[in-house]
Amino acid sequence: MSEDEITEERQRLARTAMDLMERRGEEISRAQLATELGIARTRVEQIFPDMDDLRDAVTAEWFAPKLILMDEVMASDLPPRRKMYEFFARRFVLMQDEFRADPATFRLYVEMGEDYLEHSQSYVDLADHYLCELIAEAQADGYFPDLEINDALSLINQAVACYLIPYLIATLGDRLTEDKLGSIVDTLFAGLSGKDGGARGIDRLKLAGN
Amino acid sequence: MSEDEITEERQRLARTAMDLMERRGEEISRAQLATELGIARTRVEQIFPDMDDLRDAVTAEWFAPKLILMDEVMASDLPPRRKMYEFFARRFVLMQDEFRADPATFRLYVEMGEDYLEHSQSYVDLADHYLCELIAEAQADGYFPDLEINDALSLINQAVACYLIPYLIATLGDRLTEDKLGSIVDTLFAGLSGKDGGARGIDRLKLAGN
Repeated sequence: MSEDEITEERQRLARTAMDLMERRGEEISRAQLATELGIARTRVEQIFPDMDDLRDAVTAEWFAPKLILMDEVMASDLPPRRKMYEFFARRFVLMQDEFRADPATFRLYVEMGEDYLEHSQSYVDLADHYLCELIAEAQADGYFPDLEINDALSLINQAVACYLIPYLIATLGDRLTEDKLGSIVDTLFAGLSGKDGGARGIDRLKLAGN
Repeated sequence: MSEDEITEERQRLARTAMDLMERRGEEISRAQLATELGIARTRVEQIFPDMDDLRDAVTAEWFAPKLILMDEVMASDLPPRRKMYEFFARRFVLMQDEFRADPATFRLYVEMGEDYLEHSQSYVDLADHYLCELIAEAQADGYFPDLEINDALSLINQAVACYLIPYLIATLGDRLTEDKLGSIVDTLFAGLSGKDGGARGIDRLKLAGN
């Protein structure tokens, strides 16, 4: 098989594995995948030499549509605030749709993602890389003053975590809306800076009344 | 037994149940609790007529120290920004300490909390009630303009979710710090309002480049 054929076969088998997992509600092995396809186990093992290769392929299929959305936003010529909102919102809307269409399957992928964090690390890293670009564009326009890019990255990721982390999309349900995400992004552009606004005060964790 | 004696006995049994769960790494039944204590199962069933009563008592014990922290902050005469920060930070620091001291037990309580959400609802409602008070105090000082209290409540809870939700405290680990929480609270006080800042734009989820 050529490289392209192997890639195509990997994707085809990964999608079949996902169909099967969605029907069964649990992760499946390479042996189960071979049985489902009615092919020899050795053929599946040729494509996925070990279980981690199958997990990698499934993770790639799960992230693929989110990657397309991120790439589209990054290629657009929107101003920084609109661009950052779309960067989060488009993936949020897709994940919320996925959750609503099939909550059990969505939760299965959340659990698998927790068990095999290393498989999704490269996607998280890419999203962080893109977000750093967006922050730099915003800072060029005067937003997020006096903040190192990495500090801004961490604070922004935390402030919009409800709209990024699949577990929270499943847990918080209808309390998450595009309007609220828009308000949080607007709040960040209006208020996020490296200046100490005084929330922590001087006496850390000591109350004035005590 | 008097009311006070029953309350005391409930607390004592709940704490014993928690010790046992921490050692075993799983939820325990009333029968297991009776065996651990070397007393008759009927005696345990007198205190906890069904399993839900034991869960309620364990939940109450888990929340008790967090309630004390909330009450202390609410009774203080700090200005709104400092008060809101302490309202979140003191519970966050306690939960992060609990997680670091025994990650497996902390995760066990996270899982139990997910399975029996209704048991913690009254604590969540009380925290929301207190936060509404803090928001009203802040609005009296001119913060969070043009926002209904309930909208401000939801947006603030979402923006600091990483520091409130036990699952995230376990998942995000050292990426959560009091400094970052302080920055997020400062950002909310500087930037959160009911005005549309333009993040969502006019063409919802349509990109200018498409």
